[in-house]
Amino acid sequence: MSREFDLPRRLVAEALGTLLLVATVVGSGIMAERLTDDTALALLGNTLPTGAILVVLITILGPISGAHFNPAVTLAMLLRGAIGRHSAGLYVAAQILGGIAGTVAAHLMFEIPALGLSAHLRTGPAQWWAEIVATFGLVGVILGGLRFNGPAIPWLVGLYITAAYWFTASTSFANPAVAIARAFTDTFSGIRPLDVPAFILAECIGAVLATALFGWLLHPGTRLTIRGALRGAAD
Amino acid sequence: MSREFDLPRRLVAEALGTLLLVATVVGSGIMAERLTDDTALALLGNTLPTGAILVVLITILGPISGAHFNPAVTLAMLLRGAIGRHSAGLYVAAQILGGIAGTVAAHLMFEIPALGLSAHLRTGPAQWWAEIVATFGLVGVILGGLRFNGPAIPWLVGLYITAAYWFTASTSFANPAVAIARAFTDTFSGIRPLDVPAFILAECIGAVLATALFGWLLHPGTRLTIRGALRGAAD
Amino acid sequence: MSREFDLPRRLVAEALGTLLLVATVVGSGIMAERLTDDTALALLGNTLPTGAILVVLITILGPISGAHFNPAVTLAMLLRGAIGRHSAGLYVAAQILGGIAGTVAAHLMFEIPALGLSAHLRTGPAQWWAEIVATFGLVGVILGGLRFNGPAIPWLVGLYITAAYWFTASTSFANPAVAIARAFTDTFSGIRPLDVPAFILAECIGAVLATALFGWLLHPGTRLTIRGALRGAAD
Amino acid sequence: MSREFDLPRRLVAEALGTLLLVATVVGSGIMAERLTDDTALALLGNTLPTGAILVVLITILGPISGAHFNPAVTLAMLLRGAIGRHSAGLYVAAQILGGIAGTVAAHLMFEIPALGLSAHLRTGPAQWWAEIVATFGLVGVILGGLRFNGPAIPWLVGLYITAAYWFTASTSFANPAVAIARAFTDTFSGIRPLDVPAFILAECIGAVLATALFGWLLHPGTRLTIRGALRGAAD
Repeated sequence: MSREFDLPRRLVAEALGTLLLVATVVGSGIMAERLTDDTALALLGNTLPTGAILVVLITILGPISGAHFNPAVTLAMLLRGAIGRHSAGLYVAAQILGGIAGTVAAHLMFEIPALGLSAHLRTGPAQWWAEIVATFGLVGVILGGLRFNGPAIPWLVGLYITAAYWFTASTSFANPAVAIARAFTDTFSGIRPLDVPAFILAECIGAVLATALFGWLLHPGTRLTIRGALRGAAD
Repeated sequence: MSREFDLPRRLVAEALGTLLLVATVVGSGIMAERLTDDTALALLGNTLPTGAILVVLITILGPISGAHFNPAVTLAMLLRGAIGRHSAGLYVAAQILGGIAGTVAAHLMFEIPALGLSAHLRTGPAQWWAEIVATFGLVGVILGGLRFNGPAIPWLVGLYITAAYWFTASTSFANPAVAIARAFTDTFSGIRPLDVPAFILAECIGAVLATALFGWLLHPGTRLTIRGALRGAAD
Repeated sequence: MSREFDLPRRLVAEALGTLLLVATVVGSGIMAERLTDDTALALLGNTLPTGAILVVLITILGPISGAHFNPAVTLAMLLRGAIGRHSAGLYVAAQILGGIAGTVAAHLMFEIPALGLSAHLRTGPAQWWAEIVATFGLVGVILGGLRFNGPAIPWLVGLYITAAYWFTASTSFANPAVAIARAFTDTFSGIRPLDVPAFILAECIGAVLATALFGWLLHPGTRLTIRGALRGAAD
Repeated sequence: MSREFDLPRRLVAEALGTLLLVATVVGSGIMAERLTDDTALALLGNTLPTGAILVVLITILGPISGAHFNPAVTLAMLLRGAIGRHSAGLYVAAQILGGIAGTVAAHLMFEIPALGLSAHLRTGPAQWWAEIVATFGLVGVILGGLRFNGPAIPWLVGLYITAAYWFTASTSFANPAVAIARAFTDTFSGIRPLDVPAFILAECIGAVLATALFGWLLHPGTRLTIRGALRGAAD
């Protein structure tokens, strides 16, 4: 993220990136479930486009806004002191609006009413644990990338999500804005609106845990406490 | 694109690149539909080769001609002032001829008459909207890559198209020359000739919209108007 | 691996990396076998996440601990003099504990009892030969990467394992800590506990052979003997 | 290729690389056909490992021998003056022996007699045309990579072959040593021994055509004749 770009451009970048990300998740899910009866193949047809578009979007929009596209990431950046509260709030709003617009964009391409409500049940402790793990990993990957290899971050995130679609039982939402947007589609990638709040809570827990543990791990000399880790991570 | 390479070499690069791109799209489509009855799997067998060959072709031919392989990209470059009208016209001609030659090359490998006419219906507002989105994204990705990370462009385009095959309902033609070439094959990747003009129009709309929006987004200090954006993008 | 990071952080990095690696192998295996009846597709759903997460984990944890995540790799590094005996022993312990924790983490996400015992028979000379080949290749790739292109190692390992899942008859465990962890899951990726010791032996043989051959191959002026190669590799 | 490495090491690198390449092609083919009845899925299970291992092998062995692993590539390098006749002959011998050893290595992993003879018919003008195209593209990609982006060559070759498996009707052997090695396996990836000579001829034609055309295309100031192109390419 450069200081060169003003807030309107940064917010448009966050909204546009989240829009295209959600359009990819929802659109490829619809395409996949229309073309095959094999659910593993459908998940593959959902996974590869999502991983690919993340590499692309983070590369071209990262220099403008930091390419969060994800309130859990914005939360981690807020905890690290890398973004202010006011900007963070606007980022989250842009992400949520962009995400919902992404669902609409995908629906219109596939001749589905602009917004629906998902009936896809995704709940229970195992799913919540999966979301904690998924978001813990995502935020850890981003913090590790920022520490050691910034230019690799687009690839790291794309590859991490490619893996997490399969190794987490929830197919790794790991993103509150995307979870909200996916509540509005009654297709392959949807989530029942009632199940969204617990997903968001789990995602925030994962983000905080990763900020604490990776703050300690990546920064010699810091102590392993939530407060200490956050303070250490702010350098 | 270097000034080192003369126009004949640049035109051969555009024709050869579009030829190999179309040969890949058409050929892998034929291979895939011959080997499986699962349409999602066939699309995967069409997607991965296309994404892979784009990375390769843009890397090895980009330094010669800019590796447009696509009249919509040439249009965006013309709007930005990165190519002159005369060259742009010749580029488009080379792309169209190369594309059709690619269909022929693929057909001969698979023992199909050199040229056919597709009966594959691809029409209606949802398809056109999909092509606008697909080309908007493609041109945006290229402009973002040119702005922030030129060497990544081959990867960005290959990954973007990998995603767009699945998240757009039209499987993302996003390329008028390829659309024309695909009208001449009555196989998996074909498009009914009658449906081509609307695809081309949608693709040009997507290219112009991306040039305007990304012109503003990528260039602080410019205003968000079609004219202003284009002027700003010309730096 | 930097001297900047103290032993606790290095051990946590080894444990956490092996945990996430095993969680990916086991978790994606469960996801895949639940979603499809086609075993090739299940293996693909196991392969791609494993390859992807390796790139990620080695990139973000490599600078801390060297990102072995694998006693066979630690053995090769010990033979080369790149790690001391005491640290190597602790590394292996961290890898084994982390690996088992990874199985638990995956099981809890998929609502399976925390630890089970696999009934998946993997034995016989062909399987052992496959593990020798798999680990020989893995260690050779790492040594070659260290010699010529350190920053590429995350990619080399991820891609090598992607290939080795398919070209070795054992699906390339190539890792004693992962083999132990996979004994505790009665799912797609499991291995019968009785079959683990022979796998570990084969993996160590492969690692020693690779250290010898690549020690000679990569270092002009050395002689091709186990001792000479090891000495030569220590530069 | 560095002058630092003596001829024995370079020949071992060529043999070992071709061995692992063929072991991957043959081994993954056996794995794939055992696990699924869907031929497209089997081809995918053959394609991804082959593309992945090529990136790996060229990265770690390229600095030693140039990583040809392919008599058609060695021929192109001979035409360009990048390797002498004596070395070229030894390279080809090492590649052929390594390739056959690769078939043996794969067979032993999958409990198949060390050497067999394929009954897989691959003949006729369309197949030969496919091999001309496949090898033309492969050599063109290598020459383009050498001209503009040497470090990208491992990726370019891996991605090109990933695409060519699908867009050429012959699944892109594009390699005389691999064709010979594949004659000795009566499995998914085999080729009837009788059909090998025509494949080899087609591959050599493709290599010469690529050397001529890309010699002209990549080198401003040269003329487009076989002789002139070769002379120009020697700079």
